[in-house]
Amino acid sequence: MDTDEMILVSIDDHAIEPPDLFENFVPEGLRDRAPRVVTEHGIERWTFEGTEITTPFGMCAVVSWPKDEWGFNPGRLGEVRPGCYDIHERVRDMNVNGVLASMCFPTMAGYNARTFYEADDKDLALIMLRAYNDWMRDAWCGQYPGRFIPMAIVPMWDAELCADEVRRMAASGVKAISFIEAPHAFGLPSLHTDYWDLMFGAMSDVGSVLCMHIGGSGRVITLAPEAPIDHQIVLPTQLTLMTAQDLLFSPVFRKFPDLKVALSEGGIGWIPHYLERADRHHENQAWLGNDFGGKRPSDIFREHFLACFITDRAGLKLRRDIGTDIIAWECDYPHTDTTWPKSPEVLHAELDAAGATDDEINRITFENSCRFFDFDPFVHIPKEHATVGALRALATDVDTTTTSKSEYLARFEAQRAGT
Amino acid sequence: MDTDEMILVSIDDHAIEPPDLFENFVPEGLRDRAPRVVTEHGIERWTFEGTEITTPFGMCAVVSWPKDEWGFNPGRLGEVRPGCYDIHERVRDMNVNGVLASMCFPTMAGYNARTFYEADDKDLALIMLRAYNDWMRDAWCGQYPGRFIPMAIVPMWDAELCADEVRRMAASGVKAISFIEAPHAFGLPSLHTDYWDLMFGAMSDVGSVLCMHIGGSGRVITLAPEAPIDHQIVLPTQLTLMTAQDLLFSPVFRKFPDLKVALSEGGIGWIPHYLERADRHHENQAWLGNDFGGKRPSDIFREHFLACFITDRAGLKLRRDIGTDIIAWECDYPHTDTTWPKSPEVLHAELDAAGATDDEINRITFENSCRFFDFDPFVHIPKEHATVGALRALATDVDTTTTSKSEYLARFEAQRAGT
Repeated sequence: MDTDEMILVSIDDHAIEPPDLFENFVPEGLRDRAPRVVTEHGIERWTFEGTEITTPFGMCAVVSWPKDEWGFNPGRLGEVRPGCYDIHERVRDMNVNGVLASMCFPTMAGYNARTFYEADDKDLALIMLRAYNDWMRDAWCGQYPGRFIPMAIVPMWDAELCADEVRRMAASGVKAISFIEAPHAFGLPSLHTDYWDLMFGAMSDVGSVLCMHIGGSGRVITLAPEAPIDHQIVLPTQLTLMTAQDLLFSPVFRKFPDLKVALSEGGIGWIPHYLERADRHHENQAWLGNDFGGKRPSDIFREHFLACFITDRAGLKLRRDIGTDIIAWECDYPHTDTTWPKSPEVLHAELDAAGATDDEINRITFENSCRFFDFDPFVHIPKEHATVGALRALATDVDTTTTSKSEYLARFEAQRAGT
Repeated sequence: MDTDEMILVSIDDHAIEPPDLFENFVPEGLRDRAPRVVTEHGIERWTFEGTEITTPFGMCAVVSWPKDEWGFNPGRLGEVRPGCYDIHERVRDMNVNGVLASMCFPTMAGYNARTFYEADDKDLALIMLRAYNDWMRDAWCGQYPGRFIPMAIVPMWDAELCADEVRRMAASGVKAISFIEAPHAFGLPSLHTDYWDLMFGAMSDVGSVLCMHIGGSGRVITLAPEAPIDHQIVLPTQLTLMTAQDLLFSPVFRKFPDLKVALSEGGIGWIPHYLERADRHHENQAWLGNDFGGKRPSDIFREHFLACFITDRAGLKLRRDIGTDIIAWECDYPHTDTTWPKSPEVLHAELDAAGATDDEINRITFENSCRFFDFDPFVHIPKEHATVGALRALATDVDTTTTSKSEYLARFEAQRAGT
């Protein structure tokens, strides 16, 4: 298969929420109380109920910036590539990268709805959380049918409310739920408790997918006080296995045999080694009396998990030891690890080096994601218009060159001034 | 290469210290103050300076027990296979498993010399620690030239004393130093500080190897309170990568370009995925300004580390992405993960499935270990007598059948009674 013939569905990208997000989705009398952007000393920050929400653009929206402008520093929206926050520009950036469809995690709102979870007024927080979900569904995804897999966040502070929101969103076609890898690290009940059963039950009923994005395990490890920043960036993809371990060796999958979990941005190269270890452990340590229903942990893993990667040569080489039905590709736009705008070339080279067949390429680039998320883009877009080549042909005018923050800001301000 | 033609050097096994360990190695007037074994309610425990040292035979010495007798429970020495604590029986067990040579970590003494580190009287502790090292060198390893790579522990409470002990042991031929994966998790200065420089400097001078056995990272992670015991057994091999990360992204290797580190029992299947991540991070996050002297993190990894495994199909398949010069096999006798008495068969099958060449097999089974630890068994034992087949021919009378604790105890007591 040529690069141009591939079809790409990315199940890990990120929306940078635009300042007008809540305008059309919050009941009239509460609009003043919605999260809003304040500017201080040239830095824009979201605030909600008087609390500042840090938005580190410097790492969360670096796409197309020169590398020496990356960092954890905050900034202002105008400095980032418009595709980060403008849905029309986002689709153009998807086209130029040959990406048919995308699932976008929140930024300001937090994977675990942190912004709402931390607010004191939980009634208000729930209203705003639902407004975020409605915005994501209607304003971000709804304008381009077939181009987005919508994703919801849930009110983590109350499992019954989580279940309600899972059902409410599923009823309007949203079946991806952003969650957090290690809830116990955030003061929430762990995956080994029955606290989440109501939510997992609702998800099983409606066929929703639990998306455990990396980052949540960071709080689980105690780094040396002198450890460099590198640890915070390198380790999350390495530690997602702790989430797999938590779920595999908890009662969750026995109680919810239909529950599906995406290990978002978790990488895949660690999986064969981990599954060998888990299987050997289960076989070896019989005295622990684990009950996998006569199966091995690796069987259970393959029944429940979707293994997600951006770039992963080792994992692709061992794809058959993982399971070619449970591997899915991600773009990670606009984060530092994204392969944009050369995703098709990077991915094709890795699949080619691994000796993947055309059938395997299709599974990994879009079929597994579409099946797992119950998403059929071809209802809206014929397959022949969905390929890398066809999409790129629509985007010959998109500028992908490296562009500095100051240049983006100048353009942003010029546009706002109507010049 | 046939199974019988392989030569096996295991760089991770464990001594269960015999009760008379200190008798011949402590100065006359201090023998009463040496660690000793006390029996209470049928359970034997080491004590030192009034402090009890837990020795969980149930997990540390299970070899040849039926699996349903494993567990974290303590016990008594007579219940365990004599090869655990008797050097002559150990050599017979090595022969029947075709293992030419073995490096043994401490049990009671602790990989990080915990038993001595925790004592109040540090002068006394240092005397006992040195007695342990002398015993390991002379009584455990010295009686069978060519069959053991001796290993020392160091007084972790004082880096200058550590350096002294490194030099003292190296002067008598002991160049393996047992250390701990994450010293910061044990209240010691981290690998990012300069505390250990004196010791690393001494090790570099004399060519000693820092052996970081798994287990030390356990304290670095915060498990859910309800997490099952499985986590404590499955995760350590998965988390040794945090040690690699600590060392690679610290100044240690820049300061000590000759320092060698064995990731003991760390497994190898995680390495290709981790090194991809580390290299991509270094290339991507240029703003962090890391200095690898123009090399990649993976190059530095291959210059310093020995990657050690017991059984690892995934890692062996990707051996060339790790580096066939830095992979070494381990037996892990008498722990739960040991492949004894079928190590040659298990290992050969994995190497065969991975398509390893004869040259690669030799590197992985003995050449890399011998080079890394500066150990030449063939001065004492001609190669033709060192193979799996030759050693097994010496041990046709060794009973390898599954044997219960009570049966071992009955034999032990009968032998003590001289019947």
